[in-house]
Amino acid sequence: MAVVEVTIAPLGTGTPSVSQYVAGCHRVLAKASDVKYQLTPMSTIIEGDLDRILEVIRQMHESPFAAGAQRVSTSIRIDDRRDKELTMAGKVKAVIDKLPGKSS
Amino acid sequence: MAVVEVTIAPLGTGTPSVSQYVAGCHRVLAKASDVKYQLTPMSTIIEGDLDRILEVIRQMHESPFAAGAQRVSTSIRIDDRRDKELTMAGKVKAVIDKLPGKSS
Amino acid sequence: MAVVEVTIAPLGTGTPSVSQYVAGCHRVLAKASDVKYQLTPMSTIIEGDLDRILEVIRQMHESPFAAGAQRVSTSIRIDDRRDKELTMAGKVKAVIDKLPGKSS
Amino acid sequence: MAVVEVTIAPLGTGTPSVSQYVAGCHRVLAKASDVKYQLTPMSTIIEGDLDRILEVIRQMHESPFAAGAQRVSTSIRIDDRRDKELTMAGKVKAVIDKLPGKSS
Repeated sequence: MAVVEVTIAPLGTGTPSVSQYVAGCHRVLAKASDVKYQLTPMSTIIEGDLDRILEVIRQMHESPFAAGAQRVSTSIRIDDRRDKELTMAGKVKAVIDKLPGKSS
Repeated sequence: MAVVEVTIAPLGTGTPSVSQYVAGCHRVLAKASDVKYQLTPMSTIIEGDLDRILEVIRQMHESPFAAGAQRVSTSIRIDDRRDKELTMAGKVKAVIDKLPGKSS
Repeated sequence: MAVVEVTIAPLGTGTPSVSQYVAGCHRVLAKASDVKYQLTPMSTIIEGDLDRILEVIRQMHESPFAAGAQRVSTSIRIDDRRDKELTMAGKVKAVIDKLPGKSS
Repeated sequence: MAVVEVTIAPLGTGTPSVSQYVAGCHRVLAKASDVKYQLTPMSTIIEGDLDRILEVIRQMHESPFAAGAQRVSTSIRIDDRRDKELTMAGKVKAVIDKLPGKSS
């Protein structure tokens, strides 16, 4: 299991807004029933089998081109741990549990 | 207003776990009452005045060294928009509103 | 053609030095005769067919685990342009040509 | 001493090309005589005092706005090591020295 962050941004679209392109990527992601994901203000975080996640991200990367973009910048950050299972919820809990007076 | 993502990781600490270092950074962040922030499974996202955010991040960057780390990798990603106000909630809503059948 | 930046770092090894792990990744990369690449002080940049590059990066990502790491953070940044060919040399020249008094 | 990678990209300009904006950032950078830097196909890498570097990057971040952009995405990656001096040349040499049959 890996946790992967992806950010996909078109360049040169003529509008500073990218939410329609991000939504397009999420329509691709929503079809992948074998991964979990979370939309954040700066990226989308995906949890699951690493190769499956990279396959889905590769499809997401094409979405802005299909919507007319000529250039796309895609950032992928993989957190891959082999000594214990890694989940989105577990990573957040591990931090929150170490903060004074906070419960997850 | 800007929205900034920060990830701070110590290298060479002898343990694959970094949550205690992330928690240390959050204790610094929690003292900054003039910014809003959100912990995600892959980063911390901060909303506020850009220069104030960078000042806080600079202090957060020192936290793993204070906890004994010898090397720290800090990634900062700034989303800075001048044609309209940018907020964490607004960015997520802008995407969700464009997804079929989802409400924020 | 795409230009892709990759950074691979093990977390939790007992030493702040990561050059031996980067060198291990480069031994994998060197076997891929169908891509061009450049080592920089902060990453490795690879030029070629996007899917081939991602395949090689996936193999590079395993290298630190084979060398004993328990956790690996891999960052991949894809620059993919469909309106004109993108090369490492062309991207640098495009900037330098617009700088006062500099020639590539 | 730290080594910092910066990538500055405007969003929503009418052209997929960003080299003129990168060149604008480099005109700002060129005025900072107290840091060393290297242009790569995917970023600019700067070596020097961390606070001075962040100050220069903050000025570089404004350059695309001055050139008419409405939204700018700036990525900063800090490599900060306190057990030994970190230089661009030293980081590359440390990897190359560990590669079979290669000399820096």
